[in-house]
Amino acid sequence: MAGNTFGNIFKLTTFGESHGPALGGVIDGCPSGLTIDFDSIESEMNRRKPGQSAIVTQRKEPDSVTFYSGIFEGKTTGTPIGFLIHNTDQKSKDYSHIKDSYRPSHADYVYDKKYGHRDYRGGGRSSARETACRVVAGAIAKQILSDIKITAFVSSVGDIKIDKHYSKLDFSEIEKNPVRCADPNTAASMEKLIKEIRKEGDTVGGVVSCVIENTPIGLGEPVFDKLHADLGKAMLSINAVKGFEFGSGFEGTKLKGSQHNDSFKADGKTKTNNSGGIQGGISNGMDIYFNVGFKPVATIMKAQQTIDSKNNVVEMKGKGRHDPCVVPRAVPIVEAMAALVLVDFYLINRTIKL
Amino acid sequence: MAGNTFGNIFKLTTFGESHGPALGGVIDGCPSGLTIDFDSIESEMNRRKPGQSAIVTQRKEPDSVTFYSGIFEGKTTGTPIGFLIHNTDQKSKDYSHIKDSYRPSHADYVYDKKYGHRDYRGGGRSSARETACRVVAGAIAKQILSDIKITAFVSSVGDIKIDKHYSKLDFSEIEKNPVRCADPNTAASMEKLIKEIRKEGDTVGGVVSCVIENTPIGLGEPVFDKLHADLGKAMLSINAVKGFEFGSGFEGTKLKGSQHNDSFKADGKTKTNNSGGIQGGISNGMDIYFNVGFKPVATIMKAQQTIDSKNNVVEMKGKGRHDPCVVPRAVPIVEAMAALVLVDFYLINRTIKL
Amino acid sequence: MAGNTFGNIFKLTTFGESHGPALGGVIDGCPSGLTIDFDSIESEMNRRKPGQSAIVTQRKEPDSVTFYSGIFEGKTTGTPIGFLIHNTDQKSKDYSHIKDSYRPSHADYVYDKKYGHRDYRGGGRSSARETACRVVAGAIAKQILSDIKITAFVSSVGDIKIDKHYSKLDFSEIEKNPVRCADPNTAASMEKLIKEIRKEGDTVGGVVSCVIENTPIGLGEPVFDKLHADLGKAMLSINAVKGFEFGSGFEGTKLKGSQHNDSFKADGKTKTNNSGGIQGGISNGMDIYFNVGFKPVATIMKAQQTIDSKNNVVEMKGKGRHDPCVVPRAVPIVEAMAALVLVDFYLINRTIKL
Amino acid sequence: MAGNTFGNIFKLTTFGESHGPALGGVIDGCPSGLTIDFDSIESEMNRRKPGQSAIVTQRKEPDSVTFYSGIFEGKTTGTPIGFLIHNTDQKSKDYSHIKDSYRPSHADYVYDKKYGHRDYRGGGRSSARETACRVVAGAIAKQILSDIKITAFVSSVGDIKIDKHYSKLDFSEIEKNPVRCADPNTAASMEKLIKEIRKEGDTVGGVVSCVIENTPIGLGEPVFDKLHADLGKAMLSINAVKGFEFGSGFEGTKLKGSQHNDSFKADGKTKTNNSGGIQGGISNGMDIYFNVGFKPVATIMKAQQTIDSKNNVVEMKGKGRHDPCVVPRAVPIVEAMAALVLVDFYLINRTIKL
Repeated sequence: MAGNTFGNIFKLTTFGESHGPALGGVIDGCPSGLTIDFDSIESEMNRRKPGQSAIVTQRKEPDSVTFYSGIFEGKTTGTPIGFLIHNTDQKSKDYSHIKDSYRPSHADYVYDKKYGHRDYRGGGRSSARETACRVVAGAIAKQILSDIKITAFVSSVGDIKIDKHYSKLDFSEIEKNPVRCADPNTAASMEKLIKEIRKEGDTVGGVVSCVIENTPIGLGEPVFDKLHADLGKAMLSINAVKGFEFGSGFEGTKLKGSQHNDSFKADGKTKTNNSGGIQGGISNGMDIYFNVGFKPVATIMKAQQTIDSKNNVVEMKGKGRHDPCVVPRAVPIVEAMAALVLVDFYLINRTIKL
Repeated sequence: MAGNTFGNIFKLTTFGESHGPALGGVIDGCPSGLTIDFDSIESEMNRRKPGQSAIVTQRKEPDSVTFYSGIFEGKTTGTPIGFLIHNTDQKSKDYSHIKDSYRPSHADYVYDKKYGHRDYRGGGRSSARETACRVVAGAIAKQILSDIKITAFVSSVGDIKIDKHYSKLDFSEIEKNPVRCADPNTAASMEKLIKEIRKEGDTVGGVVSCVIENTPIGLGEPVFDKLHADLGKAMLSINAVKGFEFGSGFEGTKLKGSQHNDSFKADGKTKTNNSGGIQGGISNGMDIYFNVGFKPVATIMKAQQTIDSKNNVVEMKGKGRHDPCVVPRAVPIVEAMAALVLVDFYLINRTIKL
Repeated sequence: MAGNTFGNIFKLTTFGESHGPALGGVIDGCPSGLTIDFDSIESEMNRRKPGQSAIVTQRKEPDSVTFYSGIFEGKTTGTPIGFLIHNTDQKSKDYSHIKDSYRPSHADYVYDKKYGHRDYRGGGRSSARETACRVVAGAIAKQILSDIKITAFVSSVGDIKIDKHYSKLDFSEIEKNPVRCADPNTAASMEKLIKEIRKEGDTVGGVVSCVIENTPIGLGEPVFDKLHADLGKAMLSINAVKGFEFGSGFEGTKLKGSQHNDSFKADGKTKTNNSGGIQGGISNGMDIYFNVGFKPVATIMKAQQTIDSKNNVVEMKGKGRHDPCVVPRAVPIVEAMAALVLVDFYLINRTIKL
Repeated sequence: MAGNTFGNIFKLTTFGESHGPALGGVIDGCPSGLTIDFDSIESEMNRRKPGQSAIVTQRKEPDSVTFYSGIFEGKTTGTPIGFLIHNTDQKSKDYSHIKDSYRPSHADYVYDKKYGHRDYRGGGRSSARETACRVVAGAIAKQILSDIKITAFVSSVGDIKIDKHYSKLDFSEIEKNPVRCADPNTAASMEKLIKEIRKEGDTVGGVVSCVIENTPIGLGEPVFDKLHADLGKAMLSINAVKGFEFGSGFEGTKLKGSQHNDSFKADGKTKTNNSGGIQGGISNGMDIYFNVGFKPVATIMKAQQTIDSKNNVVEMKGKGRHDPCVVPRAVPIVEAMAALVLVDFYLINRTIKL
């Protein structure tokens, strides 16, 4: 209800403010008997953490996770998995200037109006730092779904975009460039753009695309909990996301039915895949693919007009380190949220037949 | 879990197959003391029903709703509101040809694989006829939210689109044309296109836009249940929807932060509204606006290759009446789902302060 | 939230007032592929319905159920099962005397205070007539759990009780007497008492006991959703229930650990069964057994002092037909609620291991 | 689903094993603006902790709680409250003897069968140590419900019981004796019995009674989520609980309706209170009272026959310190669970009227 839990059977509840002592989470409903690959969790955390390359924020968040329960002798027991990620680089002083003023296009103002009392330090609960907990849970979900391959990558930054169908891309390129773009040439242009933007003290948005291969037929529930509806909610719940489309997406709205329909082949696969691997909200065994649009980060190093809590108009300017483009770090978050959606439907799917 | 319930406090559960004896729903959590405007419910139902104009399907579904509980002497009692919509124009014979074959880009195939046993008549549970129940519940939600104005309209059909900002449109035009387009000239072009498409036995997609005015500040919950995340899920759960974007949407991903940020004015409103009325997942009092992309209807009057349940490749051709473009009839459904999301957050919001 | 849904995966939502046009329900999450035994549903309904014997209320409620969805060609499809039970013997006039007065120990007063507007006819939503919907859903749940045998019976009426351990009883006796007592001699005494009470225009309480045989090991979830906690909630949610105890129950609180502990045998069964088939909230394969205490029905044919909605003290006297003892008719309701709890945990249990 | 969350709006999720590094919890949905009284939380924790008196277990668990989020400058912010209770006195060695054997009437066996892999140390997740987290959340809930007075006390130990109506008791006596019995003379007898039992290396059960004064009219939801049904579930979810009864309870089943009914007085209160403050599942403003039966603790210092994981019959004997009677320490847990139920319904109740 209060919005800090995701999932139905495999459920993640997160807590923690950006500059409190720690963030954390509880995973309830993780099946027993899974041998946890801790290196893989750490590796996902490292993909998300700040300071990993020259084009993202230089803040240091070691983001190491401590597990408190639910894992015994390296294996899950079926009981809830509680974990903490301590905040070691809090620097609360940096944020004193926003104690009484509202940063434009941030959540400061609405939190104040909604709750009457907020932790203003670093955005408090509204900070994207919360997504570190999602990456932990997503990394565990991926281990359960070991047959399914979830691959996200940056497909556009500003107006630079990959102009190829995903099937023409070499996914092994993604982690080779700091942008996490699946096309090396486009990656280079994007990196150049991000560096320019950073020099200006500005930020830029972009799109993360995600491809899910080898999903079994039948995941997703009809009517309200369609697979793409829950994927959409999952993605839209990530900070800075403005849009979600799957399969043919918004471009597909321009087509005729005769162009858009995916004819079946004898093996039950389809010749085309405008459906994006999902028909009627249920996976059909083809690749699932979707795009997630991120707005430019709101914190910029330029002067902006805003108001304080007494409605005085004041000028505000970002201080210290900033993140010129969030999409490279959003890649593991998109994958994590996709894994959380899939693992939940995978477990629900065990209950639907006699 | 099984996906037929929407909402947390104001909860709609629907049931019913396209060609069973009836569809229906239960609204649990509707506050007591609401004098129900039955005419308004009927009017919303009429906006959704087939056969209302020359450009939509000519099937006849009177779609009258019978209430069984929760309303006493015209006023809600706080107990669950149960209702039925009888199916009077079932014509099960029309669908015998799809008993053992899977219509391309329909849910027949995945339902069969998922459940092993399905009601094939008219798409069964996967039919968009289910949305009639959403319109009933949405009409009641709108009555609770009487201060909030929710307006959806068709903004594109195929590649014809309105080229104006929504604030330049006259919403009173929407119901004056069969397309439900807010711009009369564009409406005429769209209508022409839809008629051509119909003659071809084909279908075409489009976009429904929605503007929500006068939302109080503070609706939406942080982290997973962000207002736009639940709006997105709501829209993506409507049949044929392929994408959702709010505020600046996918276009906004191309902007710089200095262009995209919405500066505050002294009254707490913002000079621009790229945020689309939502910051950090919480309404900020500005207009909420979003786009919903619909693919072309999958049922076409042309021959298509498909397979039967024994994986034989067969040819299939739509029979009888078809719906060349679904977006005009989707307008009230988009509004209904928006109302369901808002009313739920409106009630949740009563619980968040001491 | 509003309290009209029971279960997590196999979910029953009910609606309807005692004297509205119909009661009904939706079962969501019923697995596909179950061939429904409609006779068995009707038979359970008949066990609950009024007028079935000389010792229960003589009201006539045919209680026939109409299914609207989720069952196709006699078999469940995995989609929600919607159903109605029409109210044919409404006699609204009988209840005009309680329109503005509150019956003692009924819910009239609290509904009025809570909601401000209530359907006063026959108790409206608070009537035990609602339990007919539970019996429908329970009958379907029993068919899924075909290996598990759930047997409830009356073990006490007033101060007359069966003085034998349940293992000494012949359950085939239960349906042979109108009290549904498992011991014929005690049944005769109980029947005599109930008839006397009826002549006095009074009512009397009693206890329903329930034995569940052949439950697989492992049903129930740790901590909050213990099997006995959910059974307790299920039973306490039935009208007129005042207490629940399982296994050794309240008597067991007087024992020493050395007397109470159940020693294991080599086959994993226990020598004694004070645990009542549940350890740590999880079924252990032994018989589950519990008692459910019902207060005397509040509607009596004697004058009672009460107040009206303007707080005037008034005299009230029950009219027409009354139910001197509810426990014989509660037997199938107890079984139905037990089946709903078990089927839910049975389905959840499919999700807990890798 | 997996059973580690309690509540709907004010939701507690707990995690942690008895001998893992820490237990913890997350409270989601706690309203903003509550100034937390940390001393009061600590004081409740001290009432539950082991080693507090001569008649309970002498294990030392300092049980100090660390909060990580949701509280800023001493006041709740409306965001989730995460907390840990570190396990400092783990002594894992003590439990090596139960690694492969199942303690009688403990959950070892069923956890093993259900999950296939369990943390055997000190009972792992099934240990009553988990209830420390409930006391933390309950202490916060009590602060929200500052007008409501929740008082639990021991009313029986073995066959020694208080023979007075609760209204004749002086609740200020409760914390003056180590048994937490509200009657000093009975307390003395109980203490004597517990000491004898301890010397025998045995344990004994008992009953905790709870009285809730000053509950507003209208808490509780009809049908499935009746106030007493959720109180019952809450109590039955506490380790070692075997029964729950409220108001007249099981004794009330022996009465006639004319004896049991509570007549109204002009002010809406009732002359008697057999209803136990709840009618039709909704609080009526009278005192709520109920009994909770606890079985004797299963860990005894005597030899018992049991089996190991290979089904060999083995002898087992408890080691070290044991808890001869759990009810004195259960008193704050019963209060905490009652507070969690009430606070949830209190918040839900804000949503039910227009």
